Amino acid sequence: MRALLLYRLDLAAEAAEDGIHAVDPREPIIRATDLGVTRGDGVFETAVVRGGRPQALEAHLVRMERSAQLLGLPAPGRERWARAVRRAAAEVSRPGVLRDGEIASIKFAMTRGDEIDPAGPTGWVLGFAGEDPEAVRARGVSAVVLDRGYRHDVMETAPWLLQGAKSLAYAVNQAALREARSRGADDVVFVSADGFVLEGPRSTLIARLDGALVTPPPEYGVLPGTTQADVFAGLAEVPSRVGPMMRDDLERADALWLCSSTRGAVPVRELDGVARAMDPVLTARMNTVLDGRED
Amino acid sequence: MRALLLYRLDLAAEAAEDGIHAVDPREPIIRATDLGVTRGDGVFETAVVRGGRPQALEAHLVRMERSAQLLGLPAPGRERWARAVRRAAAEVSRPGVLRDGEIASIKFAMTRGDEIDPAGPTGWVLGFAGEDPEAVRARGVSAVVLDRGYRHDVMETAPWLLQGAKSLAYAVNQAALREARSRGADDVVFVSADGFVLEGPRSTLIARLDGALVTPPPEYGVLPGTTQADVFAGLAEVPSRVGPMMRDDLERADALWLCSSTRGAVPVRELDGVARAMDPVLTARMNTVLDGRED
Repeated sequence: MRALLLYRLDLAAEAAEDGIHAVDPREPIIRATDLGVTRGDGVFETAVVRGGRPQALEAHLVRMERSAQLLGLPAPGRERWARAVRRAAAEVSRPGVLRDGEIASIKFAMTRGDEIDPAGPTGWVLGFAGEDPEAVRARGVSAVVLDRGYRHDVMETAPWLLQGAKSLAYAVNQAALREARSRGADDVVFVSADGFVLEGPRSTLIARLDGALVTPPPEYGVLPGTTQADVFAGLAEVPSRVGPMMRDDLERADALWLCSSTRGAVPVRELDGVARAMDPVLTARMNTVLDGRED
Repeated sequence: MRALLLYRLDLAAEAAEDGIHAVDPREPIIRATDLGVTRGDGVFETAVVRGGRPQALEAHLVRMERSAQLLGLPAPGRERWARAVRRAAAEVSRPGVLRDGEIASIKFAMTRGDEIDPAGPTGWVLGFAGEDPEAVRARGVSAVVLDRGYRHDVMETAPWLLQGAKSLAYAVNQAALREARSRGADDVVFVSADGFVLEGPRSTLIARLDGALVTPPPEYGVLPGTTQADVFAGLAEVPSRVGPMMRDDLERADALWLCSSTRGAVPVRELDGVARAMDPVLTARMNTVLDGRED
């Protein structure tokens, strides 16, 4: 990854003002007393840039609002964030910014702000270059199944656990990925303590079961996948549904994908050390749909 | 809370160098690409200052090392952190720094560092003034019992859930406190999904059961309480033990305390809306022990 640009957002600015301040990405912009860093108390989204525009921006902004609501944060002003993210996407798409084999993404975050000197949320927009996902889409990833520790219904029974929110408190997601690497794998599929399939630490799972594409429901505390939603919508001729899957269904599925904004649809090549069938033709169709999206 | 001082720690500096840089607490010192803020990927401790010195510093440093190990972070160099925290404690204890009714604490944190431009961990030490806890020790707090969502044994069965680590990914702790406030209470006692009593979101629980002080074991994914440990050690004439308690034991206990560095031992006045007996004499003895500690 390579940082390309950074905007600090003045969220207290009047709507009429711009409030977007370009700074050097290496410049520290967050205080040691910001709840974003002292508690992971904030939300974020990452949109990939194609054709100079952030893909699925509306869906990302809707999800950011949902996460903010789950954390009891003020609603992000959708217009201001959209303007900043679009500007960043245009900026990183100028000729000469990206190197060969790179794609650009825009990560944007909002925290609860300063704990000691409260003045409303802190916000920023980061443009960065990552590896073009073509290679990983072709070779697939190896994954392990890990227990997420919660029952599938905690979003309803214990909303303070913040399942379903894309928060800055993602240390568990990072630890799960380290666990995967220690087992020689690339990625993780989380299951609930009571055996329901959930999601990856940075992706949405799609399984093909009995000819249909299936993804777990957001009510199980998984993130509503913006990429998965666009796959389902864009491949209207393939049956698809949002519905429960149990751990056994992972074995039974004849193909599995992990979907995310920056990588698109990536097939699972191996699960818990067992080789899995991939469907390169369908994977390519999924990614053609995704790469051709408008924002 | 009022910020008093901030040191940025240069953790890459040679051992011979000081590496402690005093900055304005309002100055941003954390990048938008620091894993501390993008993932809550770091650890922290807070020590209260009495008599010009950070209390129980050694125990805090031991716990910080334990948290770092659970997160797979490099071990914090104990000498460097001790030097910085002691210096901060001395600094905030100079005449005229604190106002009437304030006490000083030192919060210190280490993150995994920059995601994009890795150069080792980020560290800082914050001195701040908080409310003197005398009043809350006398009046007690009201608390609610909330499900922590995990079984009591996840620290062993699923270490990637990071239970038992004092990490910067504390959004759930904050959300639980908001839930308590929405129910008209001040604080929270977490129980495991299988009914074991755990801890508070910012404190260790002590219950008096059949004449003995009891606190839940660290193996259940609770933080080893530095304050609770000093209460047990300092009141050697009161029987005490570390051992399991079930939710029913909370009803059965004839007194409950929430212990933390900044507040000491605070009695629970009300639990889930039911008034609880407090023992002001024993509470005062606990806090006399705590306030008289050396570092």
